[in-house]
Amino acid sequence: MEVKQSSTTAGKPIRCRAAVARTAGEALTIEEVIVAPPKPYEVRIRIICTSLCQSDITFWKLKEPHGIFPRIFGHEAAGIVESVGEGIEEVTEGDIVIPTFLSDCGECVDCISKKSNQCSKYPFEISPWMHRDGTSRFTDLEGETLYHFAYVSSFSEYTVVDISHVTKIDPAMPPNKACLLSCGVSTGVGAAWRAANVEPGSTVVIFGLGAIGLGVAEGARLCGATRIIGVDVNPDKYEIGKKFGITDFVNSTSCANKSVSEVINGMTNGGADYCFECVGLTSLMEEAFACCRKGWGKTVILGLEKPGQQLSLNSLVVLHSGKTLFGTLFGGLKPKSDIPLLVKRYMDKVIENLT
Amino acid sequence: MEVKQSSTTAGKPIRCRAAVARTAGEALTIEEVIVAPPKPYEVRIRIICTSLCQSDITFWKLKEPHGIFPRIFGHEAAGIVESVGEGIEEVTEGDIVIPTFLSDCGECVDCISKKSNQCSKYPFEISPWMHRDGTSRFTDLEGETLYHFAYVSSFSEYTVVDISHVTKIDPAMPPNKACLLSCGVSTGVGAAWRAANVEPGSTVVIFGLGAIGLGVAEGARLCGATRIIGVDVNPDKYEIGKKFGITDFVNSTSCANKSVSEVINGMTNGGADYCFECVGLTSLMEEAFACCRKGWGKTVILGLEKPGQQLSLNSLVVLHSGKTLFGTLFGGLKPKSDIPLLVKRYMDKVIENLT
Repeated sequence: MEVKQSSTTAGKPIRCRAAVARTAGEALTIEEVIVAPPKPYEVRIRIICTSLCQSDITFWKLKEPHGIFPRIFGHEAAGIVESVGEGIEEVTEGDIVIPTFLSDCGECVDCISKKSNQCSKYPFEISPWMHRDGTSRFTDLEGETLYHFAYVSSFSEYTVVDISHVTKIDPAMPPNKACLLSCGVSTGVGAAWRAANVEPGSTVVIFGLGAIGLGVAEGARLCGATRIIGVDVNPDKYEIGKKFGITDFVNSTSCANKSVSEVINGMTNGGADYCFECVGLTSLMEEAFACCRKGWGKTVILGLEKPGQQLSLNSLVVLHSGKTLFGTLFGGLKPKSDIPLLVKRYMDKVIENLT
Repeated sequence: MEVKQSSTTAGKPIRCRAAVARTAGEALTIEEVIVAPPKPYEVRIRIICTSLCQSDITFWKLKEPHGIFPRIFGHEAAGIVESVGEGIEEVTEGDIVIPTFLSDCGECVDCISKKSNQCSKYPFEISPWMHRDGTSRFTDLEGETLYHFAYVSSFSEYTVVDISHVTKIDPAMPPNKACLLSCGVSTGVGAAWRAANVEPGSTVVIFGLGAIGLGVAEGARLCGATRIIGVDVNPDKYEIGKKFGITDFVNSTSCANKSVSEVINGMTNGGADYCFECVGLTSLMEEAFACCRKGWGKTVILGLEKPGQQLSLNSLVVLHSGKTLFGTLFGGLKPKSDIPLLVKRYMDKVIENLT
């Protein structure tokens, strides 16, 4: 589709292409859709780059009631502001922005606090709607409503995002790198940096070396961790991981008669200082808890499991071990203040790996 | 029994009375027992005061393999040093001491670290033996071995305790108050103070207003918590709790058709900053997690459940809520450095309630 000048599109519906999920687990269809103009405090964004996150796949597979269709997935992207709704001064047309699934209203008790990145005004949920009025900005050419995903829906040439989910960034950042800061890499780097606050000299274990896991490795390396153990079923991930700081690798399919946690407890003389679960399996969350060190070990849950899956921990071990368990969304980052810091680190070549 | 001068008992077995548990769940019998002299790095202590902790009861009820009999329970006490084994300079006969179930060797990586109170040299377990040589110092008059409990075994007029489990205190502290710092009160106060580091102005929920729970209330009050909600099945605990700082009370048997967590989420507009489970039931641990606040809420497990009981948490809630869960032994206190601080606080009348 030809990109029109904003002067001609602002305030009008835009007809463009999108990859629409019509049925759980079935191939997306490239369709023409109508994207309504932004309402007050909303931004219409022309998506420049979008990438695929495992969470898109998890929710694409889900049937009702958790899966809702037809829907436009995608929540990891960078784009350019096409037009803004009333009341917006923070961005203007032409700005390069990163949309995020997490809100950062800047006003609520959580956004003001240093301890939380979980906006109370617009709390995170896998909603099919825009926040403020509970409606969609997408329709197909038959007039049928297409649902949003995670407040971003970036598998469309244009999308509408609430201003609380939009962060303006340095336009010098290459958009194909910037889009990775919209979810996976930020979540990983942030988890090591903000959420776990990895101490220099630490030993870190990362379960799953996808985008988030490699981001954790990068973040842990930047924090000064000296030993970063990657765990994956794919041995090729070791070579990739080395670029991000992985120093040791455990192939979880080749642990003979031992569990992964037994192997890691042996490698680390009783457990790692920090364990990050980046896959989304309760069995691995339990293994991560089992191989973080007694006394001060922290297990950080980043992986998205299917709804309803229970994480089971031996209560005596919880009591006696003194280990800590917590989950974190978006790595504990506050989008509007922390993403620009990550962009600066990339531009300053402190963060080297965004691939 | 007449208390002999140490000059006549040092180096010799002492015959004295003890309350011996011969069979799981059956009444203790007051018997004469033989307490061997302390071996190197051990201290023989004349118990002045001992109190009963729920953990004694939990393990007294347990049948094999977790229960081991005949055994001398009791691990919350204050006493006077009767004699010391070779190599000990830290205490001498006549010193007033508090034995603790937790070791503080002062040398290992955990004892040196500020982050842990879980001695690696002598890690905590519910052992029936002395640490260093794996034997008992107790026999009955038939010569049968009587097992230790939690490295203290204070339900005896004399006991032998490893020096790593002995803290010397100010002899001006009344022993009937001092003994409470040996486990329950220290665990509670420490959990609020050291383990959770309760912030001024916080809202705290305490499940179970026994010695530990009331200790948490006292600790939370000292830390400046402004709202301290007690949860108990016994409504009389509200009046007792008020002395320790309890400001609100929920009778968990009178929540109509709501769960306790629903009631507390309603009272606190979405959950408390800190929840402490002091009963030892996984169902209450789960309720505590459910009513600590998203974003920064901390759930602290202090209660001792039966072995094998699993704590079950919804993995999506863990991920999305950003809540933290951890257990702590002895409230995160390091016995040898922190107990004297608590004694000083009591003597300075900062800690007012030790009842």
